[in-house]
Amino acid sequence: MQPPLNPLVLDERLLRDLLLVLDLAGTFVFAISGAMLGVRNRLDFFGVLALSFVASSAGGITRDLLIGALPPAAINDWRYFAVAMGAGVAIFFWYSPISRLRKAILVFDAAGLALFAVAGAEKALAFGLNPMMAALLGMVTGIGGGIMRDLLVARTPAVLQRDLYAIAALAGSSLVVIGHLLDWAVIPTAIAAAALCFGIRLIAVRRGWSLPVAASSEQDESSS
Amino acid sequence: MQPPLNPLVLDERLLRDLLLVLDLAGTFVFAISGAMLGVRNRLDFFGVLALSFVASSAGGITRDLLIGALPPAAINDWRYFAVAMGAGVAIFFWYSPISRLRKAILVFDAAGLALFAVAGAEKALAFGLNPMMAALLGMVTGIGGGIMRDLLVARTPAVLQRDLYAIAALAGSSLVVIGHLLDWAVIPTAIAAAALCFGIRLIAVRRGWSLPVAASSEQDESSS
Amino acid sequence: MQPPLNPLVLDERLLRDLLLVLDLAGTFVFAISGAMLGVRNRLDFFGVLALSFVASSAGGITRDLLIGALPPAAINDWRYFAVAMGAGVAIFFWYSPISRLRKAILVFDAAGLALFAVAGAEKALAFGLNPMMAALLGMVTGIGGGIMRDLLVARTPAVLQRDLYAIAALAGSSLVVIGHLLDWAVIPTAIAAAALCFGIRLIAVRRGWSLPVAASSEQDESSS
Repeated sequence: MQPPLNPLVLDERLLRDLLLVLDLAGTFVFAISGAMLGVRNRLDFFGVLALSFVASSAGGITRDLLIGALPPAAINDWRYFAVAMGAGVAIFFWYSPISRLRKAILVFDAAGLALFAVAGAEKALAFGLNPMMAALLGMVTGIGGGIMRDLLVARTPAVLQRDLYAIAALAGSSLVVIGHLLDWAVIPTAIAAAALCFGIRLIAVRRGWSLPVAASSEQDESSS
Repeated sequence: MQPPLNPLVLDERLLRDLLLVLDLAGTFVFAISGAMLGVRNRLDFFGVLALSFVASSAGGITRDLLIGALPPAAINDWRYFAVAMGAGVAIFFWYSPISRLRKAILVFDAAGLALFAVAGAEKALAFGLNPMMAALLGMVTGIGGGIMRDLLVARTPAVLQRDLYAIAALAGSSLVVIGHLLDWAVIPTAIAAAALCFGIRLIAVRRGWSLPVAASSEQDESSS
Repeated sequence: MQPPLNPLVLDERLLRDLLLVLDLAGTFVFAISGAMLGVRNRLDFFGVLALSFVASSAGGITRDLLIGALPPAAINDWRYFAVAMGAGVAIFFWYSPISRLRKAILVFDAAGLALFAVAGAEKALAFGLNPMMAALLGMVTGIGGGIMRDLLVARTPAVLQRDLYAIAALAGSSLVVIGHLLDWAVIPTAIAAAALCFGIRLIAVRRGWSLPVAASSEQDESSS
């Protein structure tokens, strides 16, 4: 099922190939983050593979459900699944050596975030969503997998508490949308947008930047 | 994308406007409930805005996904998003003064529940669902946002434990469906249904009414 | 709304009836598991019914959302809902006597898993998904309800931690897909696949078989 590509986009096949490569690369690095969380939470072999798949695909599946691109690419194309399973199996058997590469993992995760945010925004535009929502769906594509991954081990998603993670994704996806509105060339815009997201994320990690938390004098639990 | 309105409904444009106004008003009050929970759980600025959006839109998005109205209104129409963000920003900066208005918040939340339950049932009927399921989807529209909001901070959704919340929503959405089956005028029926839901909810809060809990002598954790 | 049945399948009406019966039987046993978890977690009457519905229907709804079969059968057909509510009410009022039938419940749950895995794979094939994804969607249909049920009471889904549960479902759904590829007769294949899943699950329970857990020397909580 081909997406109804927007006639404004010059080279359709190029864009489609770009989307696929970005998606598969992002799938791999996010699957690693899911598998590592699974191992740390003592999930069994199936649980680790399930978290690999969810972390790598829940963002894209959410995007595809919301824009009506059914069945979602992650379900319809076996390559996504194969990539996620490969990452999950690798982590299951070589968790200790890989987990020592702490810095490398943060870099890869930032790369995955950048790739997904850009690919998500491109796809939402291709399906004709309005610009603001296309930028937000790019962000959701980037952070959705991490949110579902955290929910499955029953913890509040890290992205809601700590940050410049979602903001980095939103910056990248917004640049894609701005370029689309101003008719910039697709490939250079995508590269610049991914670099922007990647850069913000890495600088935020290195300098410990984060968003403010609101003052709340009351800590009671009663809610509406 | 216009919904395929049911020819049985007399004035289509009127119904569409009614749905929009109900939806936006409900979006605002539920976004406030999400943002307040976010602040209480020490989420950062992004987390508070994310909870605003989820609390205000997850019910409607779930309904739209289930009836096949893609992309969902909350994604396709920037006004929902703008209203939710406005509520989130307001709570982030003025949490303390607003949280003191405890009674006002309960009243607003009951109003949001009533608005969403009615709007959800109307939309499900407009998309041709059978009456029982339209009533249930109205209830889901009303309570879905609160459920997702609670899941994101890793707690059992309040609506499953405490009550006459879901029941109030179900009463309102059922009245909409009954009116539809008996060909009552749309606007007066919607007002009566919203008033019914709102009334049940407020009386339940004031009198501490709740549903019974089953007797269970065993408290072990083993499950299927 | 009729599914676009695959012309390779010989007797369409037979397959459709088979899917319905499998689905309703699986709905009943899973609704019981959801209701029991609800009672154990002290949910109120509504919460117990909600968990009955979620446990029995979330797997099938997820499958239907992903393959684009909207509205999902569990929403569009009142019989699923009625069966789930019947099971929920029964458990609410007779929890103690029923919960003593521990062995019977494990057997019923294994039967539900087998029925859903087979029905899920059949439906995914009927909608034209590729074989590998049809087998996985069969597994998701079987385990999805239990995952959502566990998330709603804020615990890590049991299926991710303990097992040969998901694997049993995957074995059954894979056999359905293999039979489809080799043009085996539909009904005998479905029976054999359900028996395979049921058998693996029961033997795993009896012998305490489970999947391995990865070695992880680090137990820290920092994640990507």
